[in-house]
Amino acid sequence: MTEIPPIASRRNPIIQQFRRVRDGAEEGLFIAEGLRFLEEAARAKATIDVTLVSRSAMRNDRCAALVKALTNGGSDLRVVEDDVMDAVTATRASQGIAAIAKRTPSQIQEIFVKKDGFVVIAAGVSDPGNLGTLLRTADAAGATGFVVTRDSVSPWNDKALRASAGSIFHIPVAVNVKFTDVAAAARARKYQLATTAASSGEIYHKTALRPPIVLVLGNEGSGVADGVAENCDITIRIPISKRVESLNVASAGAILCFEIARQAATSS
Amino acid sequence: MTEIPPIASRRNPIIQQFRRVRDGAEEGLFIAEGLRFLEEAARAKATIDVTLVSRSAMRNDRCAALVKALTNGGSDLRVVEDDVMDAVTATRASQGIAAIAKRTPSQIQEIFVKKDGFVVIAAGVSDPGNLGTLLRTADAAGATGFVVTRDSVSPWNDKALRASAGSIFHIPVAVNVKFTDVAAAARARKYQLATTAASSGEIYHKTALRPPIVLVLGNEGSGVADGVAENCDITIRIPISKRVESLNVASAGAILCFEIARQAATSS
Repeated sequence: MTEIPPIASRRNPIIQQFRRVRDGAEEGLFIAEGLRFLEEAARAKATIDVTLVSRSAMRNDRCAALVKALTNGGSDLRVVEDDVMDAVTATRASQGIAAIAKRTPSQIQEIFVKKDGFVVIAAGVSDPGNLGTLLRTADAAGATGFVVTRDSVSPWNDKALRASAGSIFHIPVAVNVKFTDVAAAARARKYQLATTAASSGEIYHKTALRPPIVLVLGNEGSGVADGVAENCDITIRIPISKRVESLNVASAGAILCFEIARQAATSS
Repeated sequence: MTEIPPIASRRNPIIQQFRRVRDGAEEGLFIAEGLRFLEEAARAKATIDVTLVSRSAMRNDRCAALVKALTNGGSDLRVVEDDVMDAVTATRASQGIAAIAKRTPSQIQEIFVKKDGFVVIAAGVSDPGNLGTLLRTADAAGATGFVVTRDSVSPWNDKALRASAGSIFHIPVAVNVKFTDVAAAARARKYQLATTAASSGEIYHKTALRPPIVLVLGNEGSGVADGVAENCDITIRIPISKRVESLNVASAGAILCFEIARQAATSS
């Protein structure tokens, strides 16, 4: 075993690469950071190119175990002086560990493989926290795929990743797609497309929402675009108090994802 | 009508007061900003002390109508030069209008007035976005009251207010309370207390969740504290995919608030 001194300079090429990846300047890569998030990455056997660990984090047992799992999985490892690590990481949430990971988007066709699948489409979701939360919720409800249209925020955005709590590693995610393309792929596999409206449509819990099904959620301010709604089979609504204009999209998504799960649980 | 010149200096005492209120240095007040948020305030007849409007926002018809409603409701009005307004407001979300408003917390007793009420307690919710979203969702689901324990973030936090989308004006909100006190008040009014656990408890949609009922939600990381769970009557859980550790608290709250609404709608 050769002792390699910790990286002590911000001009080190790996540190420079971290910055470029964070800025989105290196296609196909993203920064994964924090113990829990990287533990999910290791469990999911995500492709990690390089792991950076601060000198003091290496003394933490949980961190050391994680580093072992990541390097066993093929990641290169570099120890970094604490102050350089602070310069690399976006938030305190990093806990002294961060990595360059490969984005592994799925093709649309791979999303609709399951005969009785349940897919969520974020069609114009613009807030990264909402997008990440939706992905986490869809995963928790048993979704078999997740699609992000090109007018939505990227699921590899820092905030979206934090909100997804590792779910980006659990289910196939297709990105940057046109809604009409994904709707055609869903139909070809006999998926029903359900979307939401504020005032029209069936009450969600009085509507059969059975797999294979696609749940289409729209923009925070303007909802589901007209062209998208026209392309769906069912329109459902969540009845809300008259004094409230709308629900947050991640909250509406949670209610509907778990209604689909509830109907599946109570029908069998 | 006397023409008053727009406020052009950041040293103006009203501008200084805005800063102090924003920093939490003036008890009982908060900054309300943005067209939609202040429209909700006007509709709810909230007490607004002073409204500041930028010179260019005054030219906007919607803003002018809002200013009229607020001044009719008793607010003082000051027009401010655009650059001074930018210095006063936290975000672009202000749209050139911001106000000093009175916090109007309810007493615990006022929360449990309704015989068949539905109250949400945030018991240790620490993220302001989650707290505000929970308040918005509870309101939308028809909750009759909302309680924030002293170990939760304030609902008058800037981010919480933005996430609440005006719901802070719709339903009675009690803050800074001890859980044992609110539990005693709920019991005295025959409310059942339901809380959540990750792995124990009844499946939520197989459990009768009928008003008068209290839904208790816990901390993002650690869930409902032991002392709180012991004080509840029912423990429910949302079954989730094994690969997911937990749901976001605002998402879990949305699922449960709307399950309570669904049961009420389907029983009648």
